[in-house]
Amino acid sequence: MSAKPLTRDSLAALDAADPLARFGEMFELPEGVIYLDGNSLGALPKAAAERMQEVVNDEWGRGLIRSWNRRDWIGLPQRAGDKIARLIGAAPGEVVVADSTSVNLFKLLASALALRPGRTTILTEADNFPTDGYIIEGLLGMMGRPLDSIKYWDQGDAQDVISAIDEDTAVVALTHVNYKSGRIHDMAAITRAAHEAGALMLWDLCHSAGALPVELNECGVDFAVGCGYKYLNGGPGAPAFLYVAKRLQNDVAPPLSGWMGHAAPFAFDRDYRPAPGIARNLCGTPPVLSMACLDAALEIMLEADMSELRDKSLALSDAFLALVEQQCGGSGFKSIAPPPAQRGSHISLTHQHAYPVVQALTAAGVIGDFRTPDIMRFGFAPLYIRHVDIWDAVAILKDIMQSRAWDKPEFHQRSKVT
Amino acid sequence: MSAKPLTRDSLAALDAADPLARFGEMFELPEGVIYLDGNSLGALPKAAAERMQEVVNDEWGRGLIRSWNRRDWIGLPQRAGDKIARLIGAAPGEVVVADSTSVNLFKLLASALALRPGRTTILTEADNFPTDGYIIEGLLGMMGRPLDSIKYWDQGDAQDVISAIDEDTAVVALTHVNYKSGRIHDMAAITRAAHEAGALMLWDLCHSAGALPVELNECGVDFAVGCGYKYLNGGPGAPAFLYVAKRLQNDVAPPLSGWMGHAAPFAFDRDYRPAPGIARNLCGTPPVLSMACLDAALEIMLEADMSELRDKSLALSDAFLALVEQQCGGSGFKSIAPPPAQRGSHISLTHQHAYPVVQALTAAGVIGDFRTPDIMRFGFAPLYIRHVDIWDAVAILKDIMQSRAWDKPEFHQRSKVT
Repeated sequence: MSAKPLTRDSLAALDAADPLARFGEMFELPEGVIYLDGNSLGALPKAAAERMQEVVNDEWGRGLIRSWNRRDWIGLPQRAGDKIARLIGAAPGEVVVADSTSVNLFKLLASALALRPGRTTILTEADNFPTDGYIIEGLLGMMGRPLDSIKYWDQGDAQDVISAIDEDTAVVALTHVNYKSGRIHDMAAITRAAHEAGALMLWDLCHSAGALPVELNECGVDFAVGCGYKYLNGGPGAPAFLYVAKRLQNDVAPPLSGWMGHAAPFAFDRDYRPAPGIARNLCGTPPVLSMACLDAALEIMLEADMSELRDKSLALSDAFLALVEQQCGGSGFKSIAPPPAQRGSHISLTHQHAYPVVQALTAAGVIGDFRTPDIMRFGFAPLYIRHVDIWDAVAILKDIMQSRAWDKPEFHQRSKVT
Repeated sequence: MSAKPLTRDSLAALDAADPLARFGEMFELPEGVIYLDGNSLGALPKAAAERMQEVVNDEWGRGLIRSWNRRDWIGLPQRAGDKIARLIGAAPGEVVVADSTSVNLFKLLASALALRPGRTTILTEADNFPTDGYIIEGLLGMMGRPLDSIKYWDQGDAQDVISAIDEDTAVVALTHVNYKSGRIHDMAAITRAAHEAGALMLWDLCHSAGALPVELNECGVDFAVGCGYKYLNGGPGAPAFLYVAKRLQNDVAPPLSGWMGHAAPFAFDRDYRPAPGIARNLCGTPPVLSMACLDAALEIMLEADMSELRDKSLALSDAFLALVEQQCGGSGFKSIAPPPAQRGSHISLTHQHAYPVVQALTAAGVIGDFRTPDIMRFGFAPLYIRHVDIWDAVAILKDIMQSRAWDKPEFHQRSKVT
C-alpha cells in the first residue's frame, strides 16, 4: 500500500497511462454502475453481442443444419479450446470447450482414478469451491468407494498440502485461486510434489483463466478445468473448458463417452471408439449459441498482454485495499487478501454486516458480491475497470457506512442467488 | 396412400384448411429453401431471436450478475422443464432442462443401476441412436462392470424386446422413435413389461418431444431424456431435458452431484446434500443464453394442439410417400417407413446413391439428411412445413433423378457432419 494518500486525480493519472485503457470501450456496461463482479459474471463484450446476432439470424436462421459444416460448428469446441490454451500456457490440441466445470471435473477425476488403479485417495482442500468437493463425493459414491477416499487438507501454505500427499493419493485436485480469499496456490511446487509422490495433478482455473498468467505446460500439469463466464466474459453459464496434457490424452478413457467424443461420430458405429487426442473428452452435442458467444469473447482476451493484465489487476486491488483503509478505516472491514504475489484478481473483506452492505452497495450502483458467512467480494477485471472506478466505489462505500444506509429491512432480505 | 393421384392443387387445399397454418409465419425460413430437416435441427422461431437479443443486451449487458435473481435465471432449468413436461405427459416438477442428452442419460442410468443393486443388465437395442449405447459402455466401464452387462436386443416388434427382459435387467433403455426408421416403440406395453419383471424403464424422447403425443405419466415411465434442438426448435445444441417420475425423485442419488443440484447452492456447505425433487439432477451452472432460447421456443410449441400436430405430421409423411411413388417410381427409392400408427415425424428412404442425392437436393434447396449407409431422411415439422412444400420437394427430387444431377463429383465428397 502506498504511503501517500491516494486521490481521485492520482488514480486518473494511472488510467491515462494504462496500456489496457482501449479495452474499456469494447464492453457494454450500463450507465451508473461500477461493476466489481467480473469474477462472478464477466461483462458483455460488444463483439459477443454482434456475434450472437450473426449466429442466431444468419448461421442458424438462414444456414440451418448446413452450418454444422459451412460455419464449422462441429469444430467450435476445439477452436475455442485452442484460444483458451493460449491464455493458460497450454499447447494447441490440449484444451476443449465442453459442458460445465462440474461435469468436466467429473470426467477428468474419473479418468485420473483409472490411471492410478492402486491408489484410493483424492486430495482436495476443505476450503475449495464447494462443487469441486460435491463432484468428488458423487464420483466416489457411484464407484462404491468410501467417502474417506476424499482427504481434505485444511488451508495453510503450499508446504501443508505437499505434506498431505502420500502413496495413497491418486490425484490432487485444487483450485488455483481460492474463490473466497483470492489466494493463489503455488502451481509449480504442488504439481511437482504430486508427481514426486506418483500422484496426478488437477487444477481448477475458474478464477485464474483470463485473470493472471497460468503456465500449465511449464508446470507439468496433468489436468485442468475452468469456466467461461468469469474473466473470459463468455456470458452467463458459458460452457466450461478442460485440459489434458498431450502425453496423457490417449491413455484417458472418458467415463462420459458420448458421440461427440467418438473417433467418427457420423459413422454411427455401434461400439464406442474414442477420438484420438483431446476430442475424446467431448460428450454430447454442444450448446452452439452459448459456445459461439464465448468464442467471440475470447478474441478480445487474446489481444491483451497477460503481464499488463496482471500488473493492472494488482494495481487495482492495491488501490482498493489502500482506499478502504484510507476512507473507511474504523468501519469494521477486515481484509483477508493475501499479499500481491499470492493474490488473484479479486479481494475479499469480512464485515459483520457483509450481507446488507453488499445489497446497499448494489442499490447504489456498486456491484460486488457476498459469500457466506461474512465475506464481501470485489473483483477487478482489468479489461474494463478503471482506477477511478475504485475511487468512486470506495467513496460510495464510505457514504453507506457513515450514513448506515445499509441498515434497511430490504437489504437484509436474502435472495436465492448471492 | 391415396388412390387418386395427388396434385399440387389438392395439397394446397389441405394447406388452406390447416388449423396449424398460422404457425408458419412464426419461423424464419430462408427464401428458396424447403426445410425437411427439423428432426435434426429445428428452424429459428422469430420469438427466440427476439428473446436472444433481450437476454444478451438487456439481461446480461445491463442486468449483469443481478439477473440471476431479477430475471430468475436461477429458475430457468425448472421453468423450461415445466413447459416441456406439458408436451410429454409429465407433471410440473418432473422435468428439468440441463446439460446434453448424453450427459442426462449417464445421470439417469447410473441412478437406475443404483436403484436395482442386485441386477446387472441394461437392456437396449442394437439399432438405438449410437450415443445411447456409447454412454452405457462408458458408464459400465467406469463402474468396472463387464461390457456384457449391456444386452442388445435386435430390431423386431414390442414382443421381442419384452421377451428379452429378465430378472437380471436393471433398466430397459430405449429410444421412443428410432432415428433412422422413424418407428415408434409401444411405450405403454414395454414399460409395463419392464415393471412386471422388476426393471426400471428409461425412454429417450429425442425424436418424440414436440413431434407427437407422449404420455409418460399415463404409461408409468420411470425416467426419460430428450434434446431441445429438434422439434422443440431450441437452437443448435440447445440444452437437453430429463424426467424422473415423482415417486422416484427422492430416492435418486445423482452421480454428477454438482452445486446446482444441492439443496442450498449458495450456502456453500462442504458436504453435498441433494435438493429435494427433480432439481438434484442439475449439475453445473447452466448455459443461460442457450437455455433462454429454448425457453422462448417452447412458448410456441405450447400453443399448438398436439393432436392437430400429429394429424398434420402423418398427412405430410403420407403425402411424401405417395408422391415419391407417384413421381419417382422406378428411381430406386425404397421406403423403410412403418405404417402411420407406428411412425414418428420423419420418413426414411433407402437408395444406392443416397449420399449424393441428398447433396444434390440440398444444393437445389431441399434440405434433408443422410444416415449411413444408404438412408435419406426427411423430417416433417408440422409447425412450419406446408403440404405444397412436399409437392415442390418431390418435384425437385424427380428432376434430380431424371437428369442425374446428383452424379457430380462435388456431391460425392463426404462432409464432416452428415
